[in-house]
Amino acid sequence: MQIESLYHSPNTKWAYSYDSSTFHLRIRTKKNDVNQVIAITGDKYDWDNYNNDYPMEKIATDRYFDYWETELSPAQKRFSYGFRLQAEDETIWMTESEIYDEEPSPPSGYYEMPYMHEIDGFKAPDWAKSAIFYQIMPDRFANGDPRIDPDGVLEWGDQPTNDSHFGGDLQGIMDHLDYLAELGITAIYLTPIFEAPSNHKYDTVDYKKVDPHFGDTTVLKKLVAACHDRNMKVVLDAVFNHSSVDFPPFKDVIEKGEQSAYVDWFHIHDFPVEVKEGPLNYATFGFYASMPKLNTTNPEVKQYLLDVAEHWLKEVQIDGWRLDVANEIDHSFWRDFRKVVKKANPDAYIIGEAWSDSLRWLLGDQFDSVMNYPFSDRILQFFQSEQPNGLSFAENMNNILMRYPLQTNEVLFNLLGSHDTPRVLTMFGENKNRLKLAVAFLLTYIGTPCIFYGDEIGLTGEQDPDCRKCMEWDLSKQDRELFDFYKLMIKLRKKHEVLRFGRFSFLRADAEDGRIIYERRNKQEIFTIWMNQSEESALLAHPADTETEHWQDAFSGDPVKSVDGFVSIELEPFGYRILRRSLNGV
Amino acid sequence: MQIESLYHSPNTKWAYSYDSSTFHLRIRTKKNDVNQVIAITGDKYDWDNYNNDYPMEKIATDRYFDYWETELSPAQKRFSYGFRLQAEDETIWMTESEIYDEEPSPPSGYYEMPYMHEIDGFKAPDWAKSAIFYQIMPDRFANGDPRIDPDGVLEWGDQPTNDSHFGGDLQGIMDHLDYLAELGITAIYLTPIFEAPSNHKYDTVDYKKVDPHFGDTTVLKKLVAACHDRNMKVVLDAVFNHSSVDFPPFKDVIEKGEQSAYVDWFHIHDFPVEVKEGPLNYATFGFYASMPKLNTTNPEVKQYLLDVAEHWLKEVQIDGWRLDVANEIDHSFWRDFRKVVKKANPDAYIIGEAWSDSLRWLLGDQFDSVMNYPFSDRILQFFQSEQPNGLSFAENMNNILMRYPLQTNEVLFNLLGSHDTPRVLTMFGENKNRLKLAVAFLLTYIGTPCIFYGDEIGLTGEQDPDCRKCMEWDLSKQDRELFDFYKLMIKLRKKHEVLRFGRFSFLRADAEDGRIIYERRNKQEIFTIWMNQSEESALLAHPADTETEHWQDAFSGDPVKSVDGFVSIELEPFGYRILRRSLNGV
Repeated sequence: MQIESLYHSPNTKWAYSYDSSTFHLRIRTKKNDVNQVIAITGDKYDWDNYNNDYPMEKIATDRYFDYWETELSPAQKRFSYGFRLQAEDETIWMTESEIYDEEPSPPSGYYEMPYMHEIDGFKAPDWAKSAIFYQIMPDRFANGDPRIDPDGVLEWGDQPTNDSHFGGDLQGIMDHLDYLAELGITAIYLTPIFEAPSNHKYDTVDYKKVDPHFGDTTVLKKLVAACHDRNMKVVLDAVFNHSSVDFPPFKDVIEKGEQSAYVDWFHIHDFPVEVKEGPLNYATFGFYASMPKLNTTNPEVKQYLLDVAEHWLKEVQIDGWRLDVANEIDHSFWRDFRKVVKKANPDAYIIGEAWSDSLRWLLGDQFDSVMNYPFSDRILQFFQSEQPNGLSFAENMNNILMRYPLQTNEVLFNLLGSHDTPRVLTMFGENKNRLKLAVAFLLTYIGTPCIFYGDEIGLTGEQDPDCRKCMEWDLSKQDRELFDFYKLMIKLRKKHEVLRFGRFSFLRADAEDGRIIYERRNKQEIFTIWMNQSEESALLAHPADTETEHWQDAFSGDPVKSVDGFVSIELEPFGYRILRRSLNGV
Repeated sequence: MQIESLYHSPNTKWAYSYDSSTFHLRIRTKKNDVNQVIAITGDKYDWDNYNNDYPMEKIATDRYFDYWETELSPAQKRFSYGFRLQAEDETIWMTESEIYDEEPSPPSGYYEMPYMHEIDGFKAPDWAKSAIFYQIMPDRFANGDPRIDPDGVLEWGDQPTNDSHFGGDLQGIMDHLDYLAELGITAIYLTPIFEAPSNHKYDTVDYKKVDPHFGDTTVLKKLVAACHDRNMKVVLDAVFNHSSVDFPPFKDVIEKGEQSAYVDWFHIHDFPVEVKEGPLNYATFGFYASMPKLNTTNPEVKQYLLDVAEHWLKEVQIDGWRLDVANEIDHSFWRDFRKVVKKANPDAYIIGEAWSDSLRWLLGDQFDSVMNYPFSDRILQFFQSEQPNGLSFAENMNNILMRYPLQTNEVLFNLLGSHDTPRVLTMFGENKNRLKLAVAFLLTYIGTPCIFYGDEIGLTGEQDPDCRKCMEWDLSKQDRELFDFYKLMIKLRKKHEVLRFGRFSFLRADAEDGRIIYERRNKQEIFTIWMNQSEESALLAHPADTETEHWQDAFSGDPVKSVDGFVSIELEPFGYRILRRSLNGV
């Protein structure tokens, strides 16, 4: 057995409360090296009377490792534990203190789960786990009130530049809620809407005021209420890492220098503070002179921003916050932010922007979710490839899944693209078949899917500003067939809980091709999703016995038959098929 | 290269702020498998203009792995990074997303340190890092006021049982502060002193009242003031996991059942609540019916206990809290506890009781330290062995060191024993020479040492209650030679900062014997500590050139000479020698 591969840590994603009574343990071993893993558990205060062995299940495999998991519900809400690992001709025991050839006497040196406290667990709002999100940039979605357009708006549909405004607004969104409802959307996420000079509004001037070119508080309230009438949630964008240089406190610092009462609201290196090209004497977002970084560790700034967060939750009843550049703000801030937000609305959803491993924000005390860019990277990589490697894709997806506890995966914010990436259709060389496979994957995968406005009707675009084109409302220019496809897949996801909460695993993935089969499974039903990421048709077969298992096409309901213990399916180029098996005989 | 051995995670002990401007990165590789590791770092917003490579140093080796570390101080307080690892004939690159044969283009897929915030760092009080602690059980240390003895006290020095009282009290401690000062103690930790029926007082009845058999608030204030006059700190024991069954809120629940206002102060399964033998209908500490577990997640309970913590800090100016059964209380409680404590006294020291890996409480938001029982286990194992394995000892100590960030190791509460373990001298079969080596190790090691009352004058004792014998005050019965040895080692530690804060590493450790050499090092000086854990004398040699390096005996100051590039030292059975080299020519 390769000892060095073994990894377990008595916390975070390796040992965690799934819910108030269920605990999960995970361990990592070298790929294909270990046959069986048993979690040996007991109560350290009375091991003899309270102990249990739990066989662990191999739940995922990535490029180098197998991952094993088991769940348990200890009566005293506490336990100590070790692992017994069996390979072909070797058995070892692993505890916190050592690796052994013989079973070490418990509980000395064993790992400890000292006590399960519900308050320390990770709990995201239920609605978010079942939501279908839609991301909107207000300036680009729809112009519902031309009277409040900024000066110099371009013609709707013109090529955008970094500085162009198009006059989209909150009324425009309100005017198209039927469109979103038809698509099946249950939640919208708006990029920033508070007063700011830019078109994207990630440079806030007034956190307490809706940008007058987008509307006002009254319109915002109406929009939220109209969404709620349709059972649609509304999440706004909190830009707390930095402000605009025109944010009054920063202007005060420029004006009064060291005498300003707002000196400690930012990270000022020396005076006088100047907004200019070249090296700056204040910290910024990236190296953008126009976006001074806020000092969120200053209690005054913190209180100010927490008040902002609370204000909009209470004033207009929004359902959550998406947090811009969230990982550059201190953890201490986010812990208090969570308390304020959940107090104002226990069902509010908190999504951080973070592009890399975000476990440290997802332990229950900070965010509910993060934008899952590692997911999009892997999806794009696989579905755009002309020489796809299904095995690599499966390993990569498993690797990302194993970054987080299960309940976090259930609510990660999965996306194929956003205002910060090229359009997904463009990434696929405008090959709509590839896009459809990726969309089918997104909507049958674990986590909360989000659609970037216009992807569903075929908008294209390279990196910003091109990806931020105006929404196309001319029906004749919309790709309605694509729209119907999105609608179909959304409907399927909403109908079957297993597509939201079921366990995910790959059944087929090969290094030589792009033909994959994966499964979603819960106690009620099983879905298998078959995909042929290839320009050639393919015959795929997978073991099943339809004499005893009743398989059917998930859309048509037509029965599927096996021959000699295999279900075989001919998939056209870029074809896919979704099969369903009810475990309740339905 | 063995890829599966590699481990890095972009947080906790693998990537952390050492102080407000210094960041540490660590990575793990298979033992003796990799020749060089380089941390490749840069600013993700402008990599070309802001990037740096940092060679990493191999700082520790345990049974299976080498650990590499580097420190850096990024100007923008943020950076992305990857690793380049070189083995004999192979170079690979490791980023968050993948292992590569060629350098991947930064920063996509690289690890991220998004922003260093001082507020998120780990910061323990400076005094604690330099303290010499002494643990006292008040009932057993000294009887200074026989008038307040409980009924039925035994004769001082009688064999203790689980229920015996001896009449020790706070006045008794006050009477012996000169003794502690002579020994060199700079901080005392008292096991619980609040009203409770037992002799150990881990079953509190009144959290706001000093146990009348120990004294009262006035005496406690005097004791703390007298300690402070001698520059000695005082840490009390907070027993917040559970109370006594006589704690009034619990009595109320027994009495009034479901009608009690205190029903949610505990974890009650059903009614009526009965204190009895056998299965209980309320959660307890361990399976002790007399110690009902407090529901610290109930805001009322939390507020009550936080008030207690604050009360004693403010009322009698204590210098910190040791937290009983700390790991069975929720993290949420401890986060708020820290805030309250540090607000009342920013220099207060918080030490948790936790017997296993405690990283999750030591990330800056909860404890400053934990009782380092894994340390004592390893020390006892090595120094008591008749066939010692120096290599295993070194690997085990390194393994424990690598559980935590450096600044945590600097303040971990290192002990050889406590009221919960057999006496260290007894563990060593009453072999004083073994004890002395262990004490020399404790007092030249990284972390905050603590001496259990009486160990320094040769008290013996098996597991509780035997280890809780009365302190011996008859000088003729004290082992004064042992006392002087403790005093000498303490004095050395206090004189040389390097023994407190210097980097620790083993220079010699062999699987075949107990002859070890280790080093403490900072920019000013280097100590090497030589030990012969063996019943036979031994000649040890280690490379040094005393022509250019001025080595001396740390105690006598006598120069040490090398021959042919080696310093050779003849150590008697269980002998030791401490050498010092000043790097400033002193």
